[in-house]
Amino acid sequence: NEPDAPVVNTPVPGPKSLELTKQIATIQQAGTIQFFTDYENSTGNYIVDADGNKLLDVYMQIASLPLGYNHPDIQKVISDPKNYSIFVNRPALGTNPPVNLYEKLTKIINSCAPKGLNMIQTMACGSCANENAYKAIFIRYNSLMRGGKDLTAEDLNECVVNKGPGCPDLSILSFKGAFHGRTFGVLATTHSKTIHKLDIPSLDWPVAPFPRYKYPLEENVEYNKKQDEDCLREVEQLIEYYNNVKKRPVAGIVVEPVQSEGGDHHGSPYFFQQLQRIGKEKNSMLLIDEVQTGLGATGKMWAFEHFNLAESPDLMTFAKKMQIGGYFYSEKFVTQPYRIFNTWLGDPARALLLEETLNVIKRDKLIELNEKTGEYLLSNLKVMCKDYSKLIANARGLGTFCAFDGASSKIRDDLIAKMRNLGIQCGASGDVAFRIRPSLIFSKKHADIFIDRLEKSLKSF
Amino acid sequence: NEPDAPVVNTPVPGPKSLELTKQIATIQQAGTIQFFTDYENSTGNYIVDADGNKLLDVYMQIASLPLGYNHPDIQKVISDPKNYSIFVNRPALGTNPPVNLYEKLTKIINSCAPKGLNMIQTMACGSCANENAYKAIFIRYNSLMRGGKDLTAEDLNECVVNKGPGCPDLSILSFKGAFHGRTFGVLATTHSKTIHKLDIPSLDWPVAPFPRYKYPLEENVEYNKKQDEDCLREVEQLIEYYNNVKKRPVAGIVVEPVQSEGGDHHGSPYFFQQLQRIGKEKNSMLLIDEVQTGLGATGKMWAFEHFNLAESPDLMTFAKKMQIGGYFYSEKFVTQPYRIFNTWLGDPARALLLEETLNVIKRDKLIELNEKTGEYLLSNLKVMCKDYSKLIANARGLGTFCAFDGASSKIRDDLIAKMRNLGIQCGASGDVAFRIRPSLIFSKKHADIFIDRLEKSLKSF
Ligand code: FES
Repeated sequence: NEPDAPVVNTPVPGPKSLELTKQIATIQQAGTIQFFTDYENSTGNYIVDADGNKLLDVYMQIASLPLGYNHPDIQKVISDPKNYSIFVNRPALGTNPPVNLYEKLTKIINSCAPKGLNMIQTMACGSCANENAYKAIFIRYNSLMRGGKDLTAEDLNECVVNKGPGCPDLSILSFKGAFHGRTFGVLATTHSKTIHKLDIPSLDWPVAPFPRYKYPLEENVEYNKKQDEDCLREVEQLIEYYNNVKKRPVAGIVVEPVQSEGGDHHGSPYFFQQLQRIGKEKNSMLLIDEVQTGLGATGKMWAFEHFNLAESPDLMTFAKKMQIGGYFYSEKFVTQPYRIFNTWLGDPARALLLEETLNVIKRDKLIELNEKTGEYLLSNLKVMCKDYSKLIANARGLGTFCAFDGASSKIRDDLIAKMRNLGIQCGASGDVAFRIRPSLIFSKKHADIFIDRLEKSLKSF
Repeated sequence: NEPDAPVVNTPVPGPKSLELTKQIATIQQAGTIQFFTDYENSTGNYIVDADGNKLLDVYMQIASLPLGYNHPDIQKVISDPKNYSIFVNRPALGTNPPVNLYEKLTKIINSCAPKGLNMIQTMACGSCANENAYKAIFIRYNSLMRGGKDLTAEDLNECVVNKGPGCPDLSILSFKGAFHGRTFGVLATTHSKTIHKLDIPSLDWPVAPFPRYKYPLEENVEYNKKQDEDCLREVEQLIEYYNNVKKRPVAGIVVEPVQSEGGDHHGSPYFFQQLQRIGKEKNSMLLIDEVQTGLGATGKMWAFEHFNLAESPDLMTFAKKMQIGGYFYSEKFVTQPYRIFNTWLGDPARALLLEETLNVIKRDKLIELNEKTGEYLLSNLKVMCKDYSKLIANARGLGTFCAFDGASSKIRDDLIAKMRNLGIQCGASGDVAFRIRPSLIFSKKHADIFIDRLEKSLKSF
């Protein structure tokens, strides 16, 4: 019961949203609000705002809602009385897991764990997913460095107040333009926008350049190859410098398959294959952050599957569409109890929704749909970029995880506003990118509407 | 329909829990599991394990379940179809808030915001609550330091890669024995146990001693006063040292009203009053972390209300019993949009449960109940500490937020195991403390059962 097309009766945001924004600004920061949302009446790919406008949503709560609004199968999970107790009684999963936890997690692992990473650590969001994956890396790295040697009682006491060999000077290498979250550890590896970083103390950890390709790819093979080589060389040099000169060894490398928040920057399979090789040579563990790219968003379960890596990364984090945060890992990261731990360790109520989401994805072949719809969408975006080359360029994507760039930030921002007023809810990323992050039930008919409204918007410039 | 008393038919953990633990260890770290839990059949103050044992729970999911198991009013919220859409469609609260968000948050603020802190930032857990409160402190401190001066474009670019004046060398002062969470920023201020810290890189931030009182308080007035003075002196000296010598100014002070995870260490009203005075004199903002102590757990809405402070702290964080994380703040912390931000910014489904929890607390006068039950419990614990002074000592508490110490870690751990086998689920904290963290519906009859089983356990040593 989706509408056939967007319905827009007021400017977006409309008068009701503006009124509510004014009201809420008295009790909260309100500057990020796009519009207030009527979640009860939103359906499928359509989000309904406080003023009754029905927008085709290709942004889906910052890429986090996998099956669109009020999906009937998810509604069934919520309304099933046998699930109430898991919503009512939020458990401390680490100490008092529910009796069916093994069964539930095994289903998740069997449905989507990357090959070789058949253990799962659940968390509550993308930031703590990455923070704890970094901790897992540091714990393993420093334990290996110690060899079998025990720390003295004094060493152990000192580490409690951030000192001594139990509190090692180690680092994680990240990339310019990366986004891995906003708590302190992950924020030290986030380099997407000034506003995320300004005034927050951080760490001197190595930051390498990430490829910046020219499009269309097939016309810029040499330039792009050189981008890969230059970046990889700098990764190697930075690791050597931090290992040997700075004496702040690089325990891990964290990377997104596509730099999403930073502006939809892609890396080639070759780049990721070589990155994995360098990590292995230098003993830096590879963590692939699939928080935004994961769960089918790129036409594969995980975006890194596009890269044909020699093996899975050492760790892979997830959140957003997965509805819980966490990471997949292998036995080598198992350590003493209470080292990776917190009160809730995620939320089994949200994991229940994930379980059903995985069923629906499989039953309805949604990853295949995403791949197909993505191809169609991207080919159309390429046409738009040609036809309106003064306004937009660089159409790129994997599955429906597509983007293109505005000729300037202003043009990009204006385009998003125009699109919203024509009934398309979409998002920005980086300085000039327009990012498309639809749900997994986004299909050709939705792509057609999107392209139609995009062309109308571009014409109106 | 709580049982009248605990029912224990097998050792705890029983054979089913042990079997499930073995099973889950193949896909997760499992060393922290106490027993598997049958949440469907748990009721009120009683937790039911996989083997059908019914334990009186005075630990309540690490102090996080406010109204016990399957509270009928909370069940009603879950089963009410008009609430389904908020469970099904998890919103990005910062960009697309639900139409009723103002109404919902205002109810929360009106029910429990500390005086003068009438703005709320929701988050998803205690760690991100504190992490973001630190960020709010740093943003405000560094902006004030800059005066009206603008940063250059170069400064702004540099801060994106963790450099320059936009990435200032500031610190947060914390206390030995403190626990503020486990992500990197808050972990740098957590100093409770080696196992939380070992092998994780951290920050050189000031760590002051926290009072360690002798009990009973009335017999150790002078000793304890000196503890306060010594600690306060060191706080002042550390701030001066970090401000002037290390040149890493102390932007904020973070403190728990009762050091909970670290071993239930209390500070006096005088200590906290002086800490607030010092903070004001040195321009270090005061953040009180009520993650474990908040929402009525100490017989007041917030534990700091016991301290008779001149005014509310600058910021106050919450999580656990509140079911969402976050902090209360005042207008002076309002800054540009997207600085304190993430995808979900909490979970309005969990906030719905908080709203109803606040209704029930008020309707059933649960804070008053907690105060009364706490007095009764503590007076009994004091008797136990006298009668079994070779085994336990130092009974202390505010409301039902009580603790006592074992004569050794081993005695404490044995006592917890004995209690569990007599049908009491309880927790440890620090090296030797036995912590009592019941729900808000814990009453005299439950305290009687607890004391009875405690005495039986102590007798059996
Ligand atoms: S840091 Fe992830 S939920 Fe709080």
